[in-house]
Amino acid sequence: MSDKLWNGRFSQPTDALVEAFTSSIGVDSRLYAYDIAGSIAHCRMLHQIGLLSEDETEAIVEGLKAIQAEIEAGDFAFRDSLEDIHMHIESRLAEKIGDAARKLHTGRSRNDQIALDIRLYLRDETRQVIRGLAELRRAIVALAEAQIDVVMPGYTHLQRAQPVLFSHHLMAYYEMFTRDSERFADALQRIDVMPLGAAALAGTTYPIDREYTARLLGFSRIAENSMDAVADRDFALEFLAAASICMSHFSRLSEEFILWSSAEFGFIEISDGFTTGSSIMPQKKNPDVCELVRGKTGRVYGDLTALLTLMKSLPLAYNRDMQEDKEPLFDGVDTLRACIAVYSRMLGQITVKAEQMAHATETGFLNATDLADYLAAKGVPFRQAHACAGKAVRYAQSRGKELHQLSLAELKEFSPQIDADIFPALSTQAMVARRCSSGGTAPENVKQAIQKAQKRLETPHV
Amino acid sequence: MSDKLWNGRFSQPTDALVEAFTSSIGVDSRLYAYDIAGSIAHCRMLHQIGLLSEDETEAIVEGLKAIQAEIEAGDFAFRDSLEDIHMHIESRLAEKIGDAARKLHTGRSRNDQIALDIRLYLRDETRQVIRGLAELRRAIVALAEAQIDVVMPGYTHLQRAQPVLFSHHLMAYYEMFTRDSERFADALQRIDVMPLGAAALAGTTYPIDREYTARLLGFSRIAENSMDAVADRDFALEFLAAASICMSHFSRLSEEFILWSSAEFGFIEISDGFTTGSSIMPQKKNPDVCELVRGKTGRVYGDLTALLTLMKSLPLAYNRDMQEDKEPLFDGVDTLRACIAVYSRMLGQITVKAEQMAHATETGFLNATDLADYLAAKGVPFRQAHACAGKAVRYAQSRGKELHQLSLAELKEFSPQIDADIFPALSTQAMVARRCSSGGTAPENVKQAIQKAQKRLETPHV
Amino acid sequence: MSDKLWNGRFSQPTDALVEAFTSSIGVDSRLYAYDIAGSIAHCRMLHQIGLLSEDETEAIVEGLKAIQAEIEAGDFAFRDSLEDIHMHIESRLAEKIGDAARKLHTGRSRNDQIALDIRLYLRDETRQVIRGLAELRRAIVALAEAQIDVVMPGYTHLQRAQPVLFSHHLMAYYEMFTRDSERFADALQRIDVMPLGAAALAGTTYPIDREYTARLLGFSRIAENSMDAVADRDFALEFLAAASICMSHFSRLSEEFILWSSAEFGFIEISDGFTTGSSIMPQKKNPDVCELVRGKTGRVYGDLTALLTLMKSLPLAYNRDMQEDKEPLFDGVDTLRACIAVYSRMLGQITVKAEQMAHATETGFLNATDLADYLAAKGVPFRQAHACAGKAVRYAQSRGKELHQLSLAELKEFSPQIDADIFPALSTQAMVARRCSSGGTAPENVKQAIQKAQKRLETPHV
Amino acid sequence: MSDKLWNGRFSQPTDALVEAFTSSIGVDSRLYAYDIAGSIAHCRMLHQIGLLSEDETEAIVEGLKAIQAEIEAGDFAFRDSLEDIHMHIESRLAEKIGDAARKLHTGRSRNDQIALDIRLYLRDETRQVIRGLAELRRAIVALAEAQIDVVMPGYTHLQRAQPVLFSHHLMAYYEMFTRDSERFADALQRIDVMPLGAAALAGTTYPIDREYTARLLGFSRIAENSMDAVADRDFALEFLAAASICMSHFSRLSEEFILWSSAEFGFIEISDGFTTGSSIMPQKKNPDVCELVRGKTGRVYGDLTALLTLMKSLPLAYNRDMQEDKEPLFDGVDTLRACIAVYSRMLGQITVKAEQMAHATETGFLNATDLADYLAAKGVPFRQAHACAGKAVRYAQSRGKELHQLSLAELKEFSPQIDADIFPALSTQAMVARRCSSGGTAPENVKQAIQKAQKRLETPHV
Repeated sequence: MSDKLWNGRFSQPTDALVEAFTSSIGVDSRLYAYDIAGSIAHCRMLHQIGLLSEDETEAIVEGLKAIQAEIEAGDFAFRDSLEDIHMHIESRLAEKIGDAARKLHTGRSRNDQIALDIRLYLRDETRQVIRGLAELRRAIVALAEAQIDVVMPGYTHLQRAQPVLFSHHLMAYYEMFTRDSERFADALQRIDVMPLGAAALAGTTYPIDREYTARLLGFSRIAENSMDAVADRDFALEFLAAASICMSHFSRLSEEFILWSSAEFGFIEISDGFTTGSSIMPQKKNPDVCELVRGKTGRVYGDLTALLTLMKSLPLAYNRDMQEDKEPLFDGVDTLRACIAVYSRMLGQITVKAEQMAHATETGFLNATDLADYLAAKGVPFRQAHACAGKAVRYAQSRGKELHQLSLAELKEFSPQIDADIFPALSTQAMVARRCSSGGTAPENVKQAIQKAQKRLETPHV
Repeated sequence: MSDKLWNGRFSQPTDALVEAFTSSIGVDSRLYAYDIAGSIAHCRMLHQIGLLSEDETEAIVEGLKAIQAEIEAGDFAFRDSLEDIHMHIESRLAEKIGDAARKLHTGRSRNDQIALDIRLYLRDETRQVIRGLAELRRAIVALAEAQIDVVMPGYTHLQRAQPVLFSHHLMAYYEMFTRDSERFADALQRIDVMPLGAAALAGTTYPIDREYTARLLGFSRIAENSMDAVADRDFALEFLAAASICMSHFSRLSEEFILWSSAEFGFIEISDGFTTGSSIMPQKKNPDVCELVRGKTGRVYGDLTALLTLMKSLPLAYNRDMQEDKEPLFDGVDTLRACIAVYSRMLGQITVKAEQMAHATETGFLNATDLADYLAAKGVPFRQAHACAGKAVRYAQSRGKELHQLSLAELKEFSPQIDADIFPALSTQAMVARRCSSGGTAPENVKQAIQKAQKRLETPHV
Repeated sequence: MSDKLWNGRFSQPTDALVEAFTSSIGVDSRLYAYDIAGSIAHCRMLHQIGLLSEDETEAIVEGLKAIQAEIEAGDFAFRDSLEDIHMHIESRLAEKIGDAARKLHTGRSRNDQIALDIRLYLRDETRQVIRGLAELRRAIVALAEAQIDVVMPGYTHLQRAQPVLFSHHLMAYYEMFTRDSERFADALQRIDVMPLGAAALAGTTYPIDREYTARLLGFSRIAENSMDAVADRDFALEFLAAASICMSHFSRLSEEFILWSSAEFGFIEISDGFTTGSSIMPQKKNPDVCELVRGKTGRVYGDLTALLTLMKSLPLAYNRDMQEDKEPLFDGVDTLRACIAVYSRMLGQITVKAEQMAHATETGFLNATDLADYLAAKGVPFRQAHACAGKAVRYAQSRGKELHQLSLAELKEFSPQIDADIFPALSTQAMVARRCSSGGTAPENVKQAIQKAQKRLETPHV
Repeated sequence: MSDKLWNGRFSQPTDALVEAFTSSIGVDSRLYAYDIAGSIAHCRMLHQIGLLSEDETEAIVEGLKAIQAEIEAGDFAFRDSLEDIHMHIESRLAEKIGDAARKLHTGRSRNDQIALDIRLYLRDETRQVIRGLAELRRAIVALAEAQIDVVMPGYTHLQRAQPVLFSHHLMAYYEMFTRDSERFADALQRIDVMPLGAAALAGTTYPIDREYTARLLGFSRIAENSMDAVADRDFALEFLAAASICMSHFSRLSEEFILWSSAEFGFIEISDGFTTGSSIMPQKKNPDVCELVRGKTGRVYGDLTALLTLMKSLPLAYNRDMQEDKEPLFDGVDTLRACIAVYSRMLGQITVKAEQMAHATETGFLNATDLADYLAAKGVPFRQAHACAGKAVRYAQSRGKELHQLSLAELKEFSPQIDADIFPALSTQAMVARRCSSGGTAPENVKQAIQKAQKRLETPHV
């Protein structure tokens, strides 16, 4: 009981079951470096405004650094009775430097301290996520550039639709991850806000200088309202929302890589280093990394659900429920960063089977649209042209042929406007090249998109 | 069967059960005005590049406007066999103006058309949400200004903690809704992107001018990759994520209003016009609006879950699953807007019971922190000062008194440093005024915060 | 204002915006028949205990029946000012039969009345779901029986693994939907509980006979605690949880049908009546029904999330938040029933392409496990046998062959224990037949499973 | 590379990043005892059918037991390269007993092995949950019995509605947790199914005796379809769904305890051992346990969301995504069990402040319904009686009085039928006693409910 900060009015010790139930040290010990950095800044600010002497300040700062070293060396004992990371560090500091340690808590509370720690942590992690996404986008662009000549079927409804460049398909993911990066950058504006000074909830009676503390910790802004400062977890929700959207992109890319790795598609082969086998089936080479990433999507969605549910209906200001914010947040951060890292490397480990993609592009009537367009260009109203092409498909299918394998005479049955120039028009290369509207799949467009992306990615971390 | 756009290769009609199951007209008919606006812009662009004559253009535009008038007059028949809003309008246009109607579909597909419609819709709605939030924030600031003298207990863990200004508490919500507004503004950047021209997925073979269409429709940017353009629903996810966070704020405010309306708190009274009674208990005056808003939080969370789940693992590009995006989006938009509107008005209908708040502030040892601070200011180390105050609380409680009701002699038992100046120091006004650190609850700070907010809200819609 | 039930103590009318915001009639009008059935039973019970005369009872019952007829004929006007379905019906009844109508509300409240209506509704719907699932399971079993000779690749990680009977694969879904059916039957036990008599929350002062009412309405049990009776929505949560699990099964089956309908797999063809085409690509035949069902999975998950969120942290007993229970519940019920219905019919519309399945089974080294088992049977330790087979796969792959296309000499390179009897052992038929462990894919097992299922399905609705 | 089970066909080692990413040992090591129990049963079955000799069997069983002892003594090294718990144990067994170890994998696969382990684990945990809920329900009933004389306000919309027994309110939670217990018991039927023998997906070629294995492990049934056996995670979903509903009950009870612990309500005091203080505010005594439980609700909802998302759209049979099932399941189990345990103890640590509850019951017009009922009993139509009572409330409120503080003359103003017998009728005791309809709050009813519950709880674990 003696090590609790708050038991002046209590007459019974905390139940041991409760101590374990309410302790957060198993989770928040991870924030130690941020807690120490925050304490050092707070200490220097207290010195700046004359509440701590030079000696006290030095003792505190050195003591905190020594504690950090102890933790990093594995020489620090964590225990439930000290509840959380703040108490562990403060208690150890008192052991090391005596009474001065107790002054460090002047003008702050665990409520604003934990808000500070999480924001420092999440600011770092969000920057890492943005950097990681830049790396990933570079890997996508590099693969798109390297495979610029590869044509594959574009799909809608998982039915072959029209031929596209493999690079064009990849660059769709570049767009998605670019938006993700923007979303994290936007979130960062709202993460990068300094809550310290809110104290328990109402501000403090000490003449603290919050702007000074913010400068020391590199924050762009300070929280404007003390109650909001300790009651707010929007920044964590916003991160998890952006992470969930980003994971939806990973789930889609993973789904495609899994499909493409199947015997049926056979479009890519992921290297041995990024696949695993089966303990019972010797022939298996499973796209496990992709499957795990797809599965981890649920995890991040679940983290978001957890925190949204937690925050529902909480009255101001701090409530202990909010201690439960850290596990979903940490899990979301870790999961996302691991997925980004593993994909960034895996993209360089993919063998593109251009021939199989090309073969798939030649079958399945992917040129039916172009037959319709061909007719439309000759003046047939589009809906009628579409119907002609549809009938030609049905005819060809019944004979086990593709459209370009029909004779001119057969084609003319569907429309007299069809001439010999139909055959070059229905070739894959011609079809791809013809889709040169801005944003389309024509090689020139895709090359430009790649260059634009490369240029954008020259700027560090954007 | 004859009215389907795509049945050239089909030999059987669509099953009636399937027709009803796959039809989206019951939901997407709501997008008619956006569909028509998009078609008019597309038509003008086709004219601009020479694919439609002046006459055809005029016929189409006039026809579309006439259809809009029919729909708005309730003279338009919707039916499942025409599947969706695009087909309804195109089919009616053909009835009205004949073959020219069929040319309108040149260079586009329902895949990019629906993406356009939703983006136009959501751009409008997001702007309305931002405007609505500005209105709501004005209402909050007005109430905070009007009640600047009211003191209430600030709570943590729903235990009375320290006295705060009622206005300070309210302004915490101003901060939350301001962040919401910023989030919607950020989302708007990514909503305001023109997808048309992606056609089915690969771009079109027609020499369309996407920038021209974008200008006509007031878009800031065009989608850079055709496959992404039709496969992306990030903008809807991001809206729903921002809406969910915003609803978490409404749920908190609602929870507080419900608590404060209870007999036990008795801090506010919501006007008759915004409460309802009971069919069985004549005395009841229920804060139904607050309860419904709190309940609707789940609804918006559910909408986000629905769309996140839907998008998981979808291969590129368009899949029919995505038809199911509209109901959660529409529901999220409608719910959020209704909550904003009803709260904006309700805030003016709240009677603040200042006396009851003041009374609550005087009981429950809200000045215990200040006793500790008083001792700390006299040189007692903070943790020791805290322990003294804790013991004093326990002592006073056992005698059914508050701290300021103890005699000086009694107080001195806990620390000899306590003198007669303790009594003014423990008054509510002194305590509130003393919390003048930046962002704290001191009246001067709160007044400044109100002025800053008023200034910011002068700018239209921010 | 005059038509409100509860405004005795109110001095202002309800704000029109609030009236629209709080009205539930747009949603709960759907419950009219249950509300009337409940009222008739309540009325007969009041008569039974002497609180209503014969004449009053007859007037009320006839009046209610007439109102039901009006509603069903479309002759009934709904309006927001009357709030909900209960008020609409009661108010109309008063118009029709005068004062006796007012006595009907004796001993009940809208709180227990709505709980009754939803339970009656959900009891009906759950029974329909169970019936529908029985129909669906019959359709699965019928298809499994009809296609008993078809062999396909079994997959893990979407990699071909071992040959299985197509029927065996299908029967896995029979198992899933059977568990769903059991879950709904279990939920039904907890739905089928009569809440009426709880009144507002505390029970009623009238000597009502709840068991009698329960008997009239066919309930198995009455709610044991009046506060729980009006505060509980577990039954709706449990239904939505069971529905979500069921939808996860539909999403898996849909995913497989979509894959199998692709050009790459080519295992099935869904009839024209259950697919749709493309407005731009004439060759497309899209498995829209499967895609929509997969997409609707998110919707039901979202409904569950909505209701779980709503119920979080609600104090007892009734809160207006709970009005928002109906939309997710109705949506979940409708969505699930539509998916069950459309799949039950679609299963009869699937052409199984046995030849393509067989072809796929012959390639991709599906007999590698059996080569390992063959060696193990000859005494080679399993892990070593597995390694031999793995090497043989790598060798064959590098030569573009399957295992059974290697010569005996080649095979012997990997293990001298391999003899000529390896070739029959590696045939698809032999491999399937050999997996005759209970629950395995051998034809005899699958036939037995089908018979067992057929027998079980003879019992109506189980 | 040498320790992988499956790398016969692989030419490169697993990337280290991938090894860490795909390893599950950090999570599934927890299943070691179930994995070993399953292996022992499998081993004995293989002996039973003659595939393992007496000596081999003994060596394997002894080896496995020794490994279990090593793990429990902390002498076992876990490492990512061995992927999962199965490989760790098998590999260690090979070190200990040599080649016989390799035979243990005969006729099974990691796919059915992990399904077995999770089912064994969850069967145990579910039984513990049911036992824990019985304990909790006993604690509720004991408190209800002890406090049978305490009256409190019953609330709807958090407005005081009608007086109820505190015990009646508590017994509503007994009902909820009883339903939870039933749901877990129902889920247990579907958890208690033996999957082993499915091998990778298709069954095995060895003549295994699955019924024998099931008997050894105490399973009631075996999985009927091998593909379903390895692809199914319904049992985990169903557990998490039941856990989510149960957590919704805990969140409600926690919300109430938090409200009741506030200064405003002041209905209960939770003992020092189950509350914590504040590091800055000496007077605080926070209901942390209740808050944490309420916060953990989000966590379990998030676990359910995670697993529902994960399972969406997975084709049969096993996919690596499913490795991610364990963390949400373990977290859901641990969280629920901790909440049950801490609440079971905390209920004995609650001081009920009967006087404050009684005081609250006397104010707020809780007898308005009874005034209406009184009038109705005198023949005034109910709706009119309700209006009279409403007007009386408004009148009394305007004079700062309760209904029973009005004079008879004043009361008669609202209805001439009111006589002197109104005063006893409006007393709290009379009001409670009068609500004696089945399930109502009258003391006799509540006592019966308590006795019924006690009787039911005599049966162990139900």
